[in-house]
Amino acid sequence: MASDEVYRASTFAPVNIAVIKYWGKRDPKLNLPTNSSLSVTLSQDDLRTHTTASCSPSIPHDSLTLNGSDQDISGARTQACLHELRTQRQQLEDGDSTLPKLAAMKLKLVSENNFPTAAGLASSAAGFAALVRVIADLYAFPLTPTQLSRIARQGSGSACRSLMGGYVAWEKGVEADGSDSVAYEVAPAHHWPDMRALILVASAEKKDVSSTAGMQQTVASSALFEQRVKEVVPKRMRAMEKAIHERDFAAFAALTRKDSNNFHACCLDTDPPIFYMNDTSRCAVRICEAINANHEASAGKEGPVCTYTFDAGPNAVVYYLADNEEEVVGVFKSIVGDKTGWEGKRGQTVKRMNDAGALKGMEVAVEGLKKGVSRVILTGVGDGPRKTEEHLC
Amino acid sequence: MASDEVYRASTFAPVNIAVIKYWGKRDPKLNLPTNSSLSVTLSQDDLRTHTTASCSPSIPHDSLTLNGSDQDISGARTQACLHELRTQRQQLEDGDSTLPKLAAMKLKLVSENNFPTAAGLASSAAGFAALVRVIADLYAFPLTPTQLSRIARQGSGSACRSLMGGYVAWEKGVEADGSDSVAYEVAPAHHWPDMRALILVASAEKKDVSSTAGMQQTVASSALFEQRVKEVVPKRMRAMEKAIHERDFAAFAALTRKDSNNFHACCLDTDPPIFYMNDTSRCAVRICEAINANHEASAGKEGPVCTYTFDAGPNAVVYYLADNEEEVVGVFKSIVGDKTGWEGKRGQTVKRMNDAGALKGMEVAVEGLKKGVSRVILTGVGDGPRKTEEHLC
Repeated sequence: MASDEVYRASTFAPVNIAVIKYWGKRDPKLNLPTNSSLSVTLSQDDLRTHTTASCSPSIPHDSLTLNGSDQDISGARTQACLHELRTQRQQLEDGDSTLPKLAAMKLKLVSENNFPTAAGLASSAAGFAALVRVIADLYAFPLTPTQLSRIARQGSGSACRSLMGGYVAWEKGVEADGSDSVAYEVAPAHHWPDMRALILVASAEKKDVSSTAGMQQTVASSALFEQRVKEVVPKRMRAMEKAIHERDFAAFAALTRKDSNNFHACCLDTDPPIFYMNDTSRCAVRICEAINANHEASAGKEGPVCTYTFDAGPNAVVYYLADNEEEVVGVFKSIVGDKTGWEGKRGQTVKRMNDAGALKGMEVAVEGLKKGVSRVILTGVGDGPRKTEEHLC
Repeated sequence: MASDEVYRASTFAPVNIAVIKYWGKRDPKLNLPTNSSLSVTLSQDDLRTHTTASCSPSIPHDSLTLNGSDQDISGARTQACLHELRTQRQQLEDGDSTLPKLAAMKLKLVSENNFPTAAGLASSAAGFAALVRVIADLYAFPLTPTQLSRIARQGSGSACRSLMGGYVAWEKGVEADGSDSVAYEVAPAHHWPDMRALILVASAEKKDVSSTAGMQQTVASSALFEQRVKEVVPKRMRAMEKAIHERDFAAFAALTRKDSNNFHACCLDTDPPIFYMNDTSRCAVRICEAINANHEASAGKEGPVCTYTFDAGPNAVVYYLADNEEEVVGVFKSIVGDKTGWEGKRGQTVKRMNDAGALKGMEVAVEGLKKGVSRVILTGVGDGPRKTEEHLC
């Protein structure tokens, strides 16, 4: 084998948006959370990180580029992932002398996101999921996604949920070494394939507090957070798994909106307070409520038809089922139809509901959305990471 | 005594702004709260209701005008107060036949507020305090403010705290009939006379949810509210009384801001969520934090020098001590000095801190305040209701 031979693997990894939120670490170094969480993996047709990992004796040092620009990989999080992956590779090589000596080689990582970084979407989840998945492929690990999730978690907590498709839970675990703090599939995407998401990207404003810093301030100072961790989330995790198993959108919707609000309430109860939702976010909440109220006011129709969740930023993620697309997305299109994001196949086909009864008396919220939303992203539940032969280097 | 003789009394009553918030009723009919609360009574030079009560055999029916317009007094709250006051007067008359028969006469009530109703200040507290105080004077009741507070509470919960000056607590009580749910003076205004308040009135926007409806939604649906009621508030009530007794502004400031944020967190955790703070409110929070950080950064200076609280609306009430007026109010004047409200004696004398280091890097918050604040009110701690011979009718 020539010393300049290059070993290479590539993968796509998805974004996920939690419906039971991760907030707070019991161990900041290992990214061990104070509570379990649950997310929907979103389709890689719309949002994904594409990463190629290559190694060869001629690569002089580890490197990572994202969308063409060099990234700092000296941070403890990235180093923890690389170290663990190399250690496991070394063990394989130690047990089988025919294997190429990849563990000793430097890694060249090249990543591209197909969504605007400025959108404020949690790209670190997809990024670390892709990094761990692609190196595991390069190293030919015989590991399950759940086993890999333990490694990805150390890079970015929520990354562990991007190693699987569909509906994914991250069990907080109880062990001090984090060995049981892993993600598992609650249900694959095809179990409930008609789950859709409309992301309303709020006009860029400097983020209030980074989530890494913010969550530990909450742990240290909120008088309500312990209640969330001990009482609120455990019950909702069980109820959410049940809702997903039974494809019960009404239960899914209630739990999703309540948990988002509960999480942001704990942020507000932090000292000093953390504000991620802004006036635009609140307008999105009111429009969702109006769409549901309008639906439920129709004879014989039960609701809700949409729900919302907010991560550590002002963007609204509106979940709905494909059957109700016009009733939900059509209303939003009638308000923010002139923004970026409708030009794709998913967006073009949605009819604007210009005469929507849902918007009666909602002038303030309508104006707020028009003013505060800069783009939309239409997507839906999707699969886990996909291996590809499309290499970026 | 001629049948057309008119009996008359007049009073001024103050506004109060809670620093430990009242939110939630354990008995909506009697206005019995789920938790105790504590407020600062504000000076009647700046904010007050002036009410005259008159009765005579020739007055045909009960009536109330506020700032010249007729008010509906048929509501259960107002009727509960009038009924109780008349019943007590009747008992006095039954025991002393020489007393004029006022209980049987109709009441004419005329009220005027010296502050704009549009400002969204809780005027019902001053209004019901004035109503109860003035009728008690008219009826010559030998009752203490605490005894009267039990009656005023039935009109509007927070009104019971406007029957006294200075620092006033409302004990939630445990009795089913509300007999022990009364206000008491924690300390008179002259105990800590240099407490000041700057009210930043946010541009009028329709109020999200009335506080009467909102608080019961919180009781019914928030997963965090019980924690607030059972654990958070009782500890903070004791700590706040201590802070006031010891004139400990640092403790007062921390408790005030934390309790405001805790209350709004419970509003956000309500289903559907209630939002009273808006982007303007958040900018006010950030400016307060910047003023405190700037102060604490100066060698040898301890902070904080200001704190904030928000009622059921977006207006910020900034508390500070007179000695720090320039450092606190001067900064706000440099931002919103062109708004209404600085023309009074209190406002004119404050120098703008245009070169304030506090505002370095705070451009977003500064712009937000400029855009969102419509007027300011400068005031401070003040006395309880004052009897007056200035009659309005």
